Amino acid sequence: MSSEKKAVDHSHHLSDLARRHALSPLKGLQKYYGKDLIPFAGGLPSPEYFPFTSVSAQVPLADAFPLDPPRSATSPVSSSPFGWLWRLFGASKGDTTHVQIPREPRQGDGGLNLSKALQYGPVTGLQPTQAFVREFTQRIYAPAYDDWTTLAHAGNTDGWSRVAKLLLNPGDTLLVEEWTYPSALASARPIGARWKAVPMDGQGMRPDALREILAGWDVERDGPRPRVIYTVPVGQNPTGVTLGLERKKAIYDLCVQYDIIIAEDDPYYFLQVGEFVPKSLRKAERESAAGEDIARFIASLVPTYLRVDTQGRVIRLDTFSKTIAPGVRLGWFTCSPLFAERLERIGEVSTMSPCGLSQALVVALLSRWTFDGYVRWLRGLRTQYKLRRDFFVDCLMEEFDVVPTPASAVPGAWVAAGDQMTIVFSAYRRGSMDKEKPRPLLSFVPPSAGMFVWMELYFGDVPNQTDEDGSVVTPERQFFTRLADAGVLTAPGWFFLPETHKTDSLPSSAADHHIGHTRLSYTPSDAETTRRGVKIFAKTLREFCRV
Amino acid sequence: MSSEKKAVDHSHHLSDLARRHALSPLKGLQKYYGKDLIPFAGGLPSPEYFPFTSVSAQVPLADAFPLDPPRSATSPVSSSPFGWLWRLFGASKGDTTHVQIPREPRQGDGGLNLSKALQYGPVTGLQPTQAFVREFTQRIYAPAYDDWTTLAHAGNTDGWSRVAKLLLNPGDTLLVEEWTYPSALASARPIGARWKAVPMDGQGMRPDALREILAGWDVERDGPRPRVIYTVPVGQNPTGVTLGLERKKAIYDLCVQYDIIIAEDDPYYFLQVGEFVPKSLRKAERESAAGEDIARFIASLVPTYLRVDTQGRVIRLDTFSKTIAPGVRLGWFTCSPLFAERLERIGEVSTMSPCGLSQALVVALLSRWTFDGYVRWLRGLRTQYKLRRDFFVDCLMEEFDVVPTPASAVPGAWVAAGDQMTIVFSAYRRGSMDKEKPRPLLSFVPPSAGMFVWMELYFGDVPNQTDEDGSVVTPERQFFTRLADAGVLTAPGWFFLPETHKTDSLPSSAADHHIGHTRLSYTPSDAETTRRGVKIFAKTLREFCRV
Repeated sequence: MSSEKKAVDHSHHLSDLARRHALSPLKGLQKYYGKDLIPFAGGLPSPEYFPFTSVSAQVPLADAFPLDPPRSATSPVSSSPFGWLWRLFGASKGDTTHVQIPREPRQGDGGLNLSKALQYGPVTGLQPTQAFVREFTQRIYAPAYDDWTTLAHAGNTDGWSRVAKLLLNPGDTLLVEEWTYPSALASARPIGARWKAVPMDGQGMRPDALREILAGWDVERDGPRPRVIYTVPVGQNPTGVTLGLERKKAIYDLCVQYDIIIAEDDPYYFLQVGEFVPKSLRKAERESAAGEDIARFIASLVPTYLRVDTQGRVIRLDTFSKTIAPGVRLGWFTCSPLFAERLERIGEVSTMSPCGLSQALVVALLSRWTFDGYVRWLRGLRTQYKLRRDFFVDCLMEEFDVVPTPASAVPGAWVAAGDQMTIVFSAYRRGSMDKEKPRPLLSFVPPSAGMFVWMELYFGDVPNQTDEDGSVVTPERQFFTRLADAGVLTAPGWFFLPETHKTDSLPSSAADHHIGHTRLSYTPSDAETTRRGVKIFAKTLREFCRV
Repeated sequence: MSSEKKAVDHSHHLSDLARRHALSPLKGLQKYYGKDLIPFAGGLPSPEYFPFTSVSAQVPLADAFPLDPPRSATSPVSSSPFGWLWRLFGASKGDTTHVQIPREPRQGDGGLNLSKALQYGPVTGLQPTQAFVREFTQRIYAPAYDDWTTLAHAGNTDGWSRVAKLLLNPGDTLLVEEWTYPSALASARPIGARWKAVPMDGQGMRPDALREILAGWDVERDGPRPRVIYTVPVGQNPTGVTLGLERKKAIYDLCVQYDIIIAEDDPYYFLQVGEFVPKSLRKAERESAAGEDIARFIASLVPTYLRVDTQGRVIRLDTFSKTIAPGVRLGWFTCSPLFAERLERIGEVSTMSPCGLSQALVVALLSRWTFDGYVRWLRGLRTQYKLRRDFFVDCLMEEFDVVPTPASAVPGAWVAAGDQMTIVFSAYRRGSMDKEKPRPLLSFVPPSAGMFVWMELYFGDVPNQTDEDGSVVTPERQFFTRLADAGVLTAPGWFFLPETHKTDSLPSSAADHHIGHTRLSYTPSDAETTRRGVKIFAKTLREFCRV
C-alpha cells in the first residue's frame, strides 16, 4: 500500500561487528525448507530419538489471582496474627488445569508439538511463539509504523547484549539513565563502549538534561556523537520511576533531531501498579479494578516508545521473565526489519533459537489461557504487585514517621532540581517529629511500577572509614555491611551509578558525603519476612545513624 | 595436595574483549546467597507467581532401543515390503515412564524443583545440572589434569561463540580443518578473525601439515601467530572422519610446542558407530554388542583431547543436542578454572543461564535413568545410528557398483596424499565395471561416527555455466540445484570450504574443475524416504554426468 508508513533506513547505525555478520551458507538452505524435499542436507537428529514422548504441566487458571484484594489486606497489619500474611501475596484460588504437548504433529496444532519444539528451531522463534508475540505486540503496543518486526530472544539480557553488538562500536558513548542497571553496562564494556549518564528526576530521564548533553557534545573532546540510549522506562531499575508519554515524546523528538536509536528495555511494563494511595483511602480505589476490560487495561498502561516511534528508531525488549518466569528464558524484540535481520544473524551464532521446550510450554500455557486470559493473568499479577508495594510502604510507615514532602524541599540528588511534580516521602524516627529540627533518616518516592523502592539515606555525621588497603569506606558501604550482618541483603546505591562505577554513590548534585542510596526489592519475600526485614532495616539504620 | 596436577596459566591467551568483561556489582552479592538473609537486594519475582504448578513428561526407558538390531535389518532391503522399514530406525520398545518436577523444594530433591528451575539461575547451571555434568565428565572422559572445571552452556553454538570471544582478537588467525563447519566461522568472522585451513586426510587433521603451517609461519607476512584450533574431532562436520588418539597426541604436542589452545567441539562423540562392515559379515559383529558393560563402552570410544590435555589448553564442548534433543539448548564446557571464570562472565551478559525448565526436564530424565541408564541410552542410540549408517551405505551400494579402493588410487582431494590407511569406496554406474576403463561417479569413506556421508563427485566433462550476473556456476552448484529440483536437498561442498568461502569447493590439491563434493546426512529420514532419496540421488547424478 502506498499509505504504508515504513521504517526509515537506519543502516548507518549498524556497528562494524554487526556488518561483519554473514548469513551462514547452511542458513541459505532455509529457502528450500517449505518445499518438502528429502532432507539429506541438515544435521538434524531424528525426532524418534528425542526421549520425551509428551511434556505436560499443571497450570493455574488465568484468573487465579483476584482483581479485588482480600479484605484482610486493608486491615491494619499489627492487629492481625501472621497466619493470613503468609498466604496474602500468593492468595491464588488454587485451581489448576492441564496442558500437554504431544510428540507428533497433528492437523491444527499450530506447530505446537515436541517433534518441532525439540528439534533445531528458527532463531526468530517457533511458529506459535512468533504468532503469539506478533498479535500481542499489535494489540497491546500498537506500534506507530507499519513494517515493524518481532523476533524471539532468550530474555532481555540476551536481547540487550545483541542490541549492544548491533549498534555500538569501540569508543562509542552509550547514553544511560543517571542510575542504571549495572548488567546493561556489563554488556557494553567488553565492546569497548563508554557511557554517559543523563540526569533524571522523579519522572525519569530529563529531556532538558538530554538536550544539554547533545547540544554541548564536542566530538574533539567527547569522542563520536552518541547514537544509542539504553533506558528502562517503566519501574526503572533501580529508581522505580516511570517515564510518562510526554517525556517519551520529548526524548523521542530529541532522538530524531540528533539521530539516536532507543533501546527500550521494559521488563516491568506490566507491573504498573498505579500511584501509592494511603491505606485509609485504599479500599474504594481497588474495587473498581474488577470492572476493567481489556481496552481499559491497555489504556491504563503508560504507552511505550513504540507508540511514538514513527521512524523505526526504537528497539523494544520484552521478556516473559516477570510475567511468566525468568527460568523460561524467553522474550522478544520489536524493531525495524533492518535491525531484525541483523539481530537474527547475531543470534544465530550465539543463543540460536530460545529453548524449544520452554517455548512450547509457554505457548501451551498462553494458548490455554487465550489472549484475553493472558491479559487477565497480567491484571491479577498487577494486583499482587500492588499489594506487595502497598504492604512494603505500609511497613516503612509503621517503622518511621513518614511525611509527604515536595521534592524541592528534600535534600539530595535526582528528585530535587526543577522537579515540582514528585511527592517525596521523608521518613523520620518515630516520635521525633515533636522535637525541634527533626532530622529525616531517609526519603523515597513510592514506585508506581516495577519491583523496587529506591531510597536516599541521610547518614548525618557518620564518618568515612578506611579499609585495610587504605581505601575509603563510605557510610553507604558501612551500612550495607551492617545490614547484611543484621540479616538483610540490599543493593547499595554505588552498584547503579554508571559514572563512578567502582566508587560510592555520591550523586553529582550533592557534595554531601553523608548521603547514600539503596534499592530494596519488595517482590521475593512473603509478607511476614518482608515485615521482619523492614523492622531490621529501620532498627539498623537508626542505630547506624545514632538517632 | 602437592601431587595435584594443575592447569598451566594460559591467561596470556585471553582476548582483549574477554579481559574487559567485569563482574557485575549485582553478581558480587552472590557471596551472600548461602547465608539465609532477607532478600531485599535482588529483582527476583516470587515463585508463587510462576504459572507452572508442576511439569512432567513421559519418557522412554533407558533401554528403549535394542543393542541387538532387529533380524530384519540384516535382510536384503529389496526382498521386503516397506512396512517394517518405516519403523526400523525407531524400533523402541515403546514403554514409557513418568517424571515430574514439583513446584516446591523438598528435602533430598537435589535442587530439582520449579521454584529453582523457573527462577533466575546460575550461569554455570542449576545445581543438579552441574552435579550430573561433573560426574559424567569425570567418569567418561577422565581429564588428565586435576583442577578442570565444567560449566553449562546453551548448546555448542553458544559454547563455541563464547570460546571465540574468549580467545580471538581482531586480526587473529583461527586454525580449522580443511573442510569445516561454516557456522563456526560465522562466529569468528564478526570478531574480525581470519582462518587458515589445515589439510586433512581420511584420518582427520594432519599433524605433519599442522607442523608445516606453524613452522613456516611468518608474522610479517601472515599476521599474529595462530593461538587457537577449532576442531570437530569425531564424525567431523562435514567429512565424517574421526581423529584417533595418536593423532590427537601428535597435534596436542604441537600445540604445546607452539602454545595453542584447542577448542574441541564434539557433538557426535557418542555416535561412534564403528567401522562399516559389509552386509554379509554384519550379523556376528552386532550380537556381541549386547554384552558390553559401561567400562567396555567407554573403552570402545576414542579418547577425547581431555585425556591428553595435561596443561589445561583444551576447551571441550559437549552438548545434549545429539543425545537428548537440540531443542533443550543445553551443553557444557570442560576447561581450566581460568577459562571457566571468563566464559562465565561472557555468558552472564549474553545467554545467562541455560533455560531452567529445560535443565529441570533433562536432569529429571537423567535422574530417572541414572548414570548407568544414560550410558545404556547412549549405547542404544549408537546402535540406531549404526543401523542408519549401514542402511544408507547399503542403499548406495544398491544404486552403484561400489569398489573398495586404497586412498592413494583415488583421484581428488583430502583422502589422497600419503594416507595409506583409508579404504575409499569408489562408486560406478551399475554394470559399467565390465566395460573398458570404467569411470567412477563418486567416492566416499563410510563414516565411523557422526551423521554424515561425505562424497567426492566426479563430474567428468560437465562444463561450467555462467550465471545471469556473469559469475561461474560450477558443476557442483549445477548438480546441487538439479538435485533440489528432483526433490533431494543436500549440502554442497563449497559450504564447508573455509579458504574460498564464497566460491566453489575446488580442493587445493586438485586443479580438476570436474570434482565436486557433497555432504549427505543419513539421520533425519525414515528408511523408506532414505532409500527413495538415494535412488533419486543416483539417477540424477548419472543423468547429470551423462553416464
